[in-house]
This record gives sequence, C-alpha cells and structure tokens, in this order.
Amino acid sequence: MNEKLFSLLDSYYDDMVALRRHLHQHPELSFEEKETPALIEAFYKDLGVEVKTGVGGNGVTAVIKGGKPGKTVALRADFDALPIEDEKDVPYKSKISGKMHACGHDGHTATLLHLAKALHLMKEELPGTYVMIHQHAEEYAPGGAISMIEDGCLDGVDAVFGTHLWVTGELGDIEYRTGPIMAAADRFEIKIQGAGGHGAQPHKTKDAVVAGSQLVTSLQQIAARRVNPVESAVVSVGSFVAENAFNVIADSAKLIGTARTFAPEVRDLVEKEIGRITEGTCISTDCTYEYDYIRGYPAVVNHEKETDYLVRVVNDMPGVTAVESEMQMGGEDFAYYLEHRPGTFFFTGAKPEGVDVPYPHHHPKFDLNEKAMLIAAKTLGAAAIKYHNEN
Amino acid sequence: MNEKLFSLLDSYYDDMVALRRHLHQHPELSFEEKETPALIEAFYKDLGVEVKTGVGGNGVTAVIKGGKPGKTVALRADFDALPIEDEKDVPYKSKISGKMHACGHDGHTATLLHLAKALHLMKEELPGTYVMIHQHAEEYAPGGAISMIEDGCLDGVDAVFGTHLWVTGELGDIEYRTGPIMAAADRFEIKIQGAGGHGAQPHKTKDAVVAGSQLVTSLQQIAARRVNPVESAVVSVGSFVAENAFNVIADSAKLIGTARTFAPEVRDLVEKEIGRITEGTCISTDCTYEYDYIRGYPAVVNHEKETDYLVRVVNDMPGVTAVESEMQMGGEDFAYYLEHRPGTFFFTGAKPEGVDVPYPHHHPKFDLNEKAMLIAAKTLGAAAIKYHNEN
Amino acid sequence: MNEKLFSLLDSYYDDMVALRRHLHQHPELSFEEKETPALIEAFYKDLGVEVKTGVGGNGVTAVIKGGKPGKTVALRADFDALPIEDEKDVPYKSKISGKMHACGHDGHTATLLHLAKALHLMKEELPGTYVMIHQHAEEYAPGGAISMIEDGCLDGVDAVFGTHLWVTGELGDIEYRTGPIMAAADRFEIKIQGAGGHGAQPHKTKDAVVAGSQLVTSLQQIAARRVNPVESAVVSVGSFVAENAFNVIADSAKLIGTARTFAPEVRDLVEKEIGRITEGTCISTDCTYEYDYIRGYPAVVNHEKETDYLVRVVNDMPGVTAVESEMQMGGEDFAYYLEHRPGTFFFTGAKPEGVDVPYPHHHPKFDLNEKAMLIAAKTLGAAAIKYHNEN
Amino acid sequence: MNEKLFSLLDSYYDDMVALRRHLHQHPELSFEEKETPALIEAFYKDLGVEVKTGVGGNGVTAVIKGGKPGKTVALRADFDALPIEDEKDVPYKSKISGKMHACGHDGHTATLLHLAKALHLMKEELPGTYVMIHQHAEEYAPGGAISMIEDGCLDGVDAVFGTHLWVTGELGDIEYRTGPIMAAADRFEIKIQGAGGHGAQPHKTKDAVVAGSQLVTSLQQIAARRVNPVESAVVSVGSFVAENAFNVIADSAKLIGTARTFAPEVRDLVEKEIGRITEGTCISTDCTYEYDYIRGYPAVVNHEKETDYLVRVVNDMPGVTAVESEMQMGGEDFAYYLEHRPGTFFFTGAKPEGVDVPYPHHHPKFDLNEKAMLIAAKTLGAAAIKYHNEN
Repeated sequence: MNEKLFSLLDSYYDDMVALRRHLHQHPELSFEEKETPALIEAFYKDLGVEVKTGVGGNGVTAVIKGGKPGKTVALRADFDALPIEDEKDVPYKSKISGKMHACGHDGHTATLLHLAKALHLMKEELPGTYVMIHQHAEEYAPGGAISMIEDGCLDGVDAVFGTHLWVTGELGDIEYRTGPIMAAADRFEIKIQGAGGHGAQPHKTKDAVVAGSQLVTSLQQIAARRVNPVESAVVSVGSFVAENAFNVIADSAKLIGTARTFAPEVRDLVEKEIGRITEGTCISTDCTYEYDYIRGYPAVVNHEKETDYLVRVVNDMPGVTAVESEMQMGGEDFAYYLEHRPGTFFFTGAKPEGVDVPYPHHHPKFDLNEKAMLIAAKTLGAAAIKYHNEN
Repeated sequence: MNEKLFSLLDSYYDDMVALRRHLHQHPELSFEEKETPALIEAFYKDLGVEVKTGVGGNGVTAVIKGGKPGKTVALRADFDALPIEDEKDVPYKSKISGKMHACGHDGHTATLLHLAKALHLMKEELPGTYVMIHQHAEEYAPGGAISMIEDGCLDGVDAVFGTHLWVTGELGDIEYRTGPIMAAADRFEIKIQGAGGHGAQPHKTKDAVVAGSQLVTSLQQIAARRVNPVESAVVSVGSFVAENAFNVIADSAKLIGTARTFAPEVRDLVEKEIGRITEGTCISTDCTYEYDYIRGYPAVVNHEKETDYLVRVVNDMPGVTAVESEMQMGGEDFAYYLEHRPGTFFFTGAKPEGVDVPYPHHHPKFDLNEKAMLIAAKTLGAAAIKYHNEN
Repeated sequence: MNEKLFSLLDSYYDDMVALRRHLHQHPELSFEEKETPALIEAFYKDLGVEVKTGVGGNGVTAVIKGGKPGKTVALRADFDALPIEDEKDVPYKSKISGKMHACGHDGHTATLLHLAKALHLMKEELPGTYVMIHQHAEEYAPGGAISMIEDGCLDGVDAVFGTHLWVTGELGDIEYRTGPIMAAADRFEIKIQGAGGHGAQPHKTKDAVVAGSQLVTSLQQIAARRVNPVESAVVSVGSFVAENAFNVIADSAKLIGTARTFAPEVRDLVEKEIGRITEGTCISTDCTYEYDYIRGYPAVVNHEKETDYLVRVVNDMPGVTAVESEMQMGGEDFAYYLEHRPGTFFFTGAKPEGVDVPYPHHHPKFDLNEKAMLIAAKTLGAAAIKYHNEN
Repeated sequence: MNEKLFSLLDSYYDDMVALRRHLHQHPELSFEEKETPALIEAFYKDLGVEVKTGVGGNGVTAVIKGGKPGKTVALRADFDALPIEDEKDVPYKSKISGKMHACGHDGHTATLLHLAKALHLMKEELPGTYVMIHQHAEEYAPGGAISMIEDGCLDGVDAVFGTHLWVTGELGDIEYRTGPIMAAADRFEIKIQGAGGHGAQPHKTKDAVVAGSQLVTSLQQIAARRVNPVESAVVSVGSFVAENAFNVIADSAKLIGTARTFAPEVRDLVEKEIGRITEGTCISTDCTYEYDYIRGYPAVVNHEKETDYLVRVVNDMPGVTAVESEMQMGGEDFAYYLEHRPGTFFFTGAKPEGVDVPYPHHHPKFDLNEKAMLIAAKTLGAAAIKYHNEN
C-alpha cells in the first residue's frame, strides 16, 4: 500500500510546492486566519471530501473514511504565521508587510492537504478513518489546539500524529523521542515596587534596581540548586527595565522572562520557587511586588507505544532514517492532543541544501527544504495506514 | 551701614516678589537663556550700573564701585530653569509648557538685582567694589561657571559669596558649613555587551541581564567596603535597561548612574572601583563592556576663614540664625568659583509657611517662601560690605 | 541452564548471608584491605579455582573456564568499606570502631563468590570463560579499577558486567540505563587570598568573605546558564571556611566543593567556567586565588548493546523486573572498565523489607535487604552465561 | 599655676616611666585585675590621699580636695591589659605569657597617678575637687565604666576628662573632636539553618553556604543604600564558617561580624536592617536562622562646650598643638561617662620616635612614646585646674 501512496505523493510534489509558496506569500497571524482556512476548505470541497470549518475558532477538519474497517487516526498540521518581516530574497517572499511564515506552517499545510488528496483517492482500499486536523493559532498562547479539542476534533479518534518540518535536522531524518520531546513554555512577569528618589539619597528610597538585580542573581539558584539535576529547567529573565534619569533612584523595575520545563512537578516547582525568591528578595529590600506566572503550552510528551510504532514504520521506509531527538526547550500546543489521545510528535529534517548552519525558525531569513514536505507526507501517511494492522 | 541697607531692601520687597514671579512665569532652560539675561541687562541699565552681557555664554556681570577703598567682593546668582512641567496652581505659574523654575533661581536673580540696586544707591559711602555675577546654566553640566570664570568674571575679585534658597531650611536660618558642603556629582554609563539568543537556550548566549544584575549587586561594595567609612560616597544605578521579548535572552544591558563624593581622592577611588568591578564582572560572565565616567561639578568646598566670617556676620543680624549645615549630596557649579577664590556658599532657609514637608527642589509642585529672598539679600549684602573691615 | 544456576544459588543463600555478615563485621578501608582479599583468595583455593592476588594493589581475580567455547565475560564486585561508625543495632554490626560496610560492598563480594562457586560447579556444561574481578578501593579516588586494568584484569575479556545493591530500589527490580547512569564526580578547591584587617576599617582590606560570597553566588550561573539545560551538572560548594575573630576582616577564605556531570564536554565546561568566574570575581574584589579542579571518576556510561541485552536477560527471569533507572549523580570507578570494554552497570533493588524510606548509602544506620544478593547473583550469572549465544 | 604643675610633672617623669614599665611587665586581663588596683591603692596611701577600692568591681577612685572652692572634675585612666603575646624585644617586655599592655593602659595609669601626686602637693592653692577614676576592664564588654558609675564614681562630679595615648598621632598633638569621636562597636551573630545532604543532590537540601553567601552579598546594601551617606556605618562579616566534607551540602553556616556606627539612630537602623536582610534571605532560600545583635560600647560623643574649652587650654600650653581628630571607628567605654556628665575625650599623640608607621594598638609589637605621658598629664591637669575659672 505504501508503494501506491508514495507514488501518488511523488506525483503531487510540484503542486505541494506551489501551494506552500502561495501560502508563504499570504501569511496570516494567529487568531486572524481567514484566507488560509478558506483555501483549505476549498481544497477539500474540490476533492469532494467532507470538511468542517470554524472548528474551535478558525480551525478546519476533514474526514476521509476508508473502505475497510479500522481505527480512526488523526493527523494535524497548523497553519498560522508570525509577526516577522520577511527578509528573504526569493520569488515567493511574503506579500504582507510584517507577517511571515517563519516557522514552516505553510509547509505543514501543503503536506497534509496533499496527503489527504492521496488518501481520498485510495480510500476504497484503506482500512479505518482519517481525520485531518488543520489547526489555527499555534504560535500564540493559549493556541488553537485546546478550543479545537473542546469543539470535538478528537471525538472518536484512536491516535494522533503530527510533525514539524525542522531546519536543523538533516533531510531524510525523522527525529523521534519517547516521553518529553518539547518543553512546557511559560512566561513570568515580576514588577518590583520600591520608592524612588534622588540618586544622591539612597537612604530615603527603596531602590528597585538593586532589588531587581538581587532577584535576577538569586533566580539562578532555581536551575542550579532546587531542581533535580537530572531534570531540565530554564529560568531566563529576558527583559529588565527600570528606565530613569541617571541621577534618580528607580521607583520600580519590571522583569519579564520565560521558564521551560518538561516534568509537570518541575514546572510547579519552578513557579513556586520564583515566587519564593521574589518574596524573600522584596522582604530583604523592603519593596513590594506583583508576580504573575502565565502558563503557556505544557510539555509535548510522546507516548511510548506510538513512538515505538512510528520508529518501526520509518525503519520500513526507503531513504528515511529514524534518529532519536534531543529534548527541545521550545514549546508546541500539540501537547494538548497527547493529553487526550495516544500519539507521537516528531521532527522531519528540513535543512536547506548546501547550507551548514540554516537560519533558525522565527528568523527573518528562515526558509526550509521543500523536499521535506514529501518525506513528512509519506511518513504521516504510512503511519496512519499501517496503524490499523498493528493495534 | 547694615541698618540703611536692610531698610532699603525692605522697601524693595514687593518689587523683588514681582520680579521673581515674572521670571517664574518665563523660565528658560540652561544654555538657552535669552530673555532673562536681557531683563537683567535692562535692570542694570535703568539703574545706570555698568553691565556686561555675553560673559562666558549667556552670563551677565555688573560692577558697583564704592566711594571708599576696599576689597572686591563677588556675589553670584544663577538664573536658568528646568525641563519640568509646572504643576502648581498659583497665578504666577510657568507660562512655558515643560519648563519651570523648580529650583529657585528666579528668586536668586530677584534677590541679587535688588541687592545691587541698594548697593548702587549707597555706593558713595561703601568701601570696595561689588561684582554681581548672574550665571547662566547651573542646572546642566558643564555649567556656566567655568566659562564665565574663563571669561574673566573673577578678575580682581578677592572673595566670592553665594547662596541657595533652600526649602528644607526654616525661614530665618542661614545654613553654613566649613569644608565640603555639596558633593561632586558625576555620571557613569556602562554598556554590557553579551550575546543574545533564545530564552530557552541560555548556554548558547552570554546573558547581559544576569551580568548587569551581578554588577549592580557588586557595586554596593564600593560604598560599603572600599571607601573609608568616615568619608561619604554614593554609587546609584538609576537606570537599568535591557528591553526584549520575554523569551529572548538579552544581548546587551545599559546601566546609567550617579556617583557622589566630597573628597577628591574618594572621587578618584570610586571611578576606579566601578571600573574594576565592571571588568571583573564581565570576565566572570564572558561579556564585554564600555564604561564611561563623566565628571560633573566637583564638590563645593567652603573656605574656613570666609565661612567663620559669614557666621560672625549672621550672628550680628537680627532675626537670623546661623545653623551648621549637613553635607548635601547634591552638586553645584559654585564649586568652581571656590577653586579660584576664597569664599563660602550657604543655604538660606526658604520653607513655605504652614508646610511641614515642602515639595523638594526639582519637584513639579516646588515653591519657596519669598520672604527668604529678603534674608538672602541682607545676608549677602552685609557680608559683602563688612568684608573690607575684617580682612 | 538458568534453572540449574538459580537452584544452586538458592541453595547457597544461607552461606551467602553468613559470608556477607562476616565481612560486615570486619570492614577494611580503601587501600588498606588485607583480610578481605585473603578471605577471597582462600574461598577460591578451597573451590580449586585459579586465583590471582595483588592485582593492581589489593585486587583479586579468579578465572573459571567453561567446558565449551565462548566469549570471555568479566563480572566485578568491589570489597572496601568506609570510615563511618556503625550505628546499627544488629548482631552482625561492625566490630571495628570507625569503619563500616555502609555501601553494600560486603554484599557484592558474597554475591560474586557464591556465583563463582555455582559457575565452577557447572563449568563443564558452560560456554566461554568467566573472570571474577574482586576490586579493592572503590570508595576513594583514584580507586582500584585503574590499577587493576593496568595490571591486566581485562585482558582477553569481551564484556564486563557489574551491579550495585541499591537500597532505594525495590526488591526484584533491576534498574538499567543505556548511556550515562552515574556521574563524573570531581572535586574543586578555591583559596581566595585577600588582605585582612580590622573589621572597622574595610577600606584598608580586601575582604575575602565578601569575595567568597560573591563567588558562591555567581557559581550558580554555571548550572543555570552555561550548561545546556538538557544536560546535567551540579556545582556545590560544601565547605566555606574563613574563621576569624568577629571584629577582624578575613584574610583568606577556603571553598571546597564537588562538581557532577555526565558528558565529558560538560565536565570540561564546568571546570573552565568555575575558573572563569573565580578569576572575574577576584579581579572585581582585588583578591588573588588558587584554583584546583581534581578529577575523580568519570561518568559510568553503559553501552547500548550490552544494556539492551541485559534487559532481555532480565525479562526472561521469573520474579524480576527491568526498570529504567534515573541517572544518578553519584560516582563509581566501574566507569573505567566501560572505557575499555563493552558492558553495562546496573542497580539491584535492595530496599529492606517493611521500610518506606531506607537509610541511604553511607549512612551510619545503612543496611540492605540480603535477598537482593540472590537476585544480583542470578542476574549476573544469567547475563554471563547467555552472552555467548547472543553475540 | 600651670607653670608649677608642669615643673612638678617634669620632675616626676623618670618615676612615671619606671611605673609604666613595671605595669607593662605585669599585665592583667579585664575583670581579672588584682595587683594593679593594689599598686594604685598603695600609691595613694603612700601619698596620704583618700582612696577607695572595689569600685564597681576592680575599680579604684581617689579624691583630692583643693584648698579653694570650685567645681569637681573627674579624670579617668583605664588599667587592664590584653590577651596578646608580647613580641617586643625590650627590657620591660611583659613577664606574663599571653598577656600584654598592647593598648597603652599602663601609660594611662602612670600618667594619672603622677598627675594626682602633683595635684596633691599643690592642693592648698587649688580650686575645686579632683576625682581620679582608675577604671578596670575597658577592653572587654560590658566594660568597667558602667559598674563604676553605678557605684557612684561620678557622684558630685561636674565634668569628666579622659585621654588615650595614641601611637598614630604625632608627639605634641592633642587630637580633639566635638561630637562623636569613637564609634559604637557592636557584634552580631547569624546562624543559618538549612538542610544538609549529598553534594550531588542539591534539590534535596537547603544549601546554607549559598544562603550565607547571598546574605553577605546583600548586607553590603546597608552601608551603601540604607544609611544616610553623610553618616558612617560599617557592617563586616569577619567569620563565615560552614565546614564540611567537599561532597556534602552544608547543613548550617555561622556568620559573625561587627557593626560600627556613631549616631544612635544609625545604630538602630543597622541592627534592624541586618535582621531584615537575614529574614528575606532565609525566606528566599527556605532556611531558618538565629540572629543576635549584641551591643557593645556606644559611641563616644564629646560635649561641644568642654571640647571647645579643652582646645583653649591646649592653645595656651607651650609645645602642644590642638588638631581636629578624624572620627575613629574603634570603641571605648568612656562613652558612658559622657552620657552622664559633660566632658571630652581626646587622643594624646604618642608615635614612637624615628618611626614612620608604628605598630598599631593591639599589635604584638605595639609600643608607645613615653614622653606622651608627660604631655597627657599636663593637658589633663591644666584642663582640670582651669575648669573652675571658666565655668
């Protein structure tokens, strides 16, 4: 069966590239997607596939029923873009100023649509049911996954698979990992309120710059001392702003940062310890504070059985290699699907040809190797079709 | 002689207030003064006193020669205003948006002009010569004093006196101090250059927020450990700016602050120690840096003999009390006159009536007790006239 | 074959316990072992097995040749004790004041000797050759493994297996892990040399307590900022001593600590970063320093193939469960064997019965579940015998 | 009158030296003085002067009544020694191992006794009454002054004078100062209680070394930020002890230090701020603590009128110069006398001849210029006699 699928997909490759480039030129930001879901809807209607729009917001789902009995497998691709100015010099450069598909979601969408087209064509001979989840708003918390799940996109689904085109991965590599593969990505904001005054009279003030500096220094203890060293945690203060005249002592300081963790108990610990250290620091410096810890996506935790299964599928595919992935400190709302259904999320190597160090995801010059779309489509398709035999 | 002087000044009081309020409504910023020196020039021309404009920039000097032999005494008043929005609700509120006499230089000018008027009227019976120094640009380094001195305003002068109307001082108090009375006020800027990156990947970056925070923390050692505890020093970082997205590690951080000292060797030490700690911190954090230490006004160091003399003058004046002043951590470019000539600088208590805690100098609601102008005029005048007898 | 081995071992259980208890009562410190190697030698001589003493110091090796061709497999047990006072209240409590088998090496030795006895009895039917490595001095760097290897204990060996009885593991669990399972355990010493003086005159001193405190604070950045968050590293200052009269400023401070890592490049990084931060801190505080980083055992890095093999062996054993181990931050000189030969090191669960939280290894009340010796013997034996079939 | 007094004292100089050297050879520690008060008592009895022993412990007082009416003036000399091994190579070196007059109290005693002898001889012509206070136990808090005062040594006294032979002062200099001249010298002890553990498992511990280091770092803010920069304060941690094996995380850390201040409100502030910072640090690090702030002697605050008077007395003495003293951060229990009576405490320059940088007070090689005793005796005597005329 794979042979037929792969051959169909090969024949769609030029269309896949064309569609991806069209989307690349017309990026839409998270929660503002209109044309993209409309395009997806039209694609399915043209095929004659049952499609549903407005799923949990701007999401779209389509269902392909195979002619034979089997499981229901969901495949997910996200389709939103980023508020970044496209600085590439290519014909398919973004036409929208300040917006760009700098993460590859255009490729995800082109991949899944053409995989759907192939599955639809083969449907009589296929076992089971295939749910195509085209997700909006992956780039911006709270993300589109939660609302699409609440709106039923996983109803009746037995397993879910997803992939990310990954420019640091070699073309032909499928990077898998059992357990946590992407981190919980949270945000924290701390406002330290001191009492400002003249720079020459520190004793009449409560110096928010000193308090904030002491806080940043002490926050290093969280990863260094308070988290189990065999677990991972990052606490980074990205922004420290207390802007004043040079001879004024700061009234307040605003610290904003990110915390990354994999294990839920480490996530809870980090949230608590930031609070503890902030409290102690402000007692020590006689300041007050506001502390907000805003949870972003949880960690993407792949299920062991489905990951092992994926590796076997990949091992049977010619020209593709399964490679164990490092844990990535970045976040993904695919996490939510895996909280509800068995499944696995993997990276499809998409490093541009002839490039040693590619522009990273979210970079204004980001681009990907379009051939990776074909590999992603084949891998997702093979995994979906074979799933019924195996389980 | 004092009796006559005091009686003349009393009779000018209403004019003094009127002139001060006129100036208050028409503030001009440092180095931008035009109308104020023109008004001063006109005042002297009306009196028939020899006046010189454009002294070292926008400065004005006038000379009154007494009918008897004697010393030459200079009296100084500054006349520039501040870039502050006047928030007082009074009829004489500033008419210029964003500019305000929030430090009392309007009062200094009204005081000195009317004292000059009285001295001019009494000149036949007066010993010696009186140089009125109307200084521009005290509020903004490098200030107007240096250029006026270079332009000859102290030529032939034997001693120089000056005062500041001082709202934290009680009306009737003359606050004197031998030795340092106001601090050297310097500025420093430190730019820490790290290497930015994703907040989830600290190991690929050199975190400028962490480096800056460690620096601020360590700078506390200067006043606490490295300066002789019986000397005074303040090192305040007023501004700490590393503004970024929350999930980005800061590429650079900019710290700006002020250093206040009295003794020249402490000033040198503080400059050197900030540099030492910055260097060590950047070695420790693998960052680079730029460090600038910009010297502002030196400390105002009163001469012992002239200060003792002033106290004796004040002790002979009815209704005025000599009080020893604390050292003030603020700066004043009167410092330069005292580097060239003997003299003393004192505070004339100007706390508004019925107020416990007055709005401080440089506050948008700052105002002063206008009666203090009369006391300042009498004290400067009495000190100037008597100086010839004593020395 | 396993059946016969297991049944023999079961029949030796009482002897195993008796021997372990005898050793428990007669502990000998690292590099001081005399009676223990003599006992081991006598045990083999009684069996009629070829034994070699004085291997790389106090080590002992014995060789059992099977009747059939096959690989050569080494099994290792360490036999030294610790300088800890035994505080247990049991009949087999240590008879030597201040010395104790507080880590279970007595059990390791009893286990390996009785496994050897069984293998010797079965030797005609066994494939391959079995090298018993009784290692001295595991507890004290540089350890006994290096010198025993240099003295040839691994000559001709194809694979090496070892286990540690592990009181935090449940009885019946075999804790395995591919890749790093135990950390590189290094020591560092930093002496900060300031210039002491009177506590009331900090400006005449270079305060080593302040410098040392700043150093400890900054060292937290290593694990928090400089090591890849998906890697593990610990930098702990265990001892900070600057002992003086209260009114004296410290001349010097001595910091001693431990660094734990798994990856060699992280180990190098930690050594370098401690040096960098120490240098920067001492520049910042105008102190000098001596910094020594003394490498202990490297990380124990299990080979993938041999670990997978072990798991299969365990899965075939009744009543025993293979459980993936966490990485342990403790150190073990078994690391050296794995640098020379394929193999794997695992933990044999030995939690005492009826105990929730057992006294940890190295605790004065440490004890282990003796039944774990039987499980360890069976696992090592089964792994050694089967190894020839599989490879 | 001074002429006669000075001439008598000149004639006693050799005896003064001999007595000082005798005392130097027989030092007695604070609160252990026996022979010294006995020698003092005998000296007065030989003269026929009324003497009282056991005053407030080991103190001695003697009273000389002049033949004319006048005020009652007290003169104080302390007589205890220090637990220091005498390392000088002189014939009058201490004969008692481990004890030494390393602060000059031997000289104080010889000075006051011979001054008393002269006053006694002149008593018929003298106005007023002279109380000689020979104080025990100045070197060790709570000191002897409090108990001697409670025992009545100041009863009927109108003014009190005292001096310290001062080796950093030039021979011939009398160093005076109005207001604070010596600091309040307090002690603080902070025990931080964390929870120890293995150096490889920081997350299971509360690291007292990290907490203590953070505390020392933050304590620098007290002098740098919280005390008025024109006031003086020193907070020095002299001892930081957390001694452990290198691979153990510290259970607790003990910090001991000294705080020096002049103004009572600054003293209160420092005590409070150490507590505040300790509390905040321990909240931040999840540790607990014990904090003790043990007040030593308060600041020696000279009275203005008596100090001015002393300067006038000195100005009338040939060969002696009044020099304004810096504030000294060291402590003295003469402070208590000045809390009860008007008076002043001054330094009598006693730098050894031919020496640039003398061994400081409390140094094992400390010695003083014995000629300073004569100057001290003359100054105290002249001040005491003239006091009646002036007040």
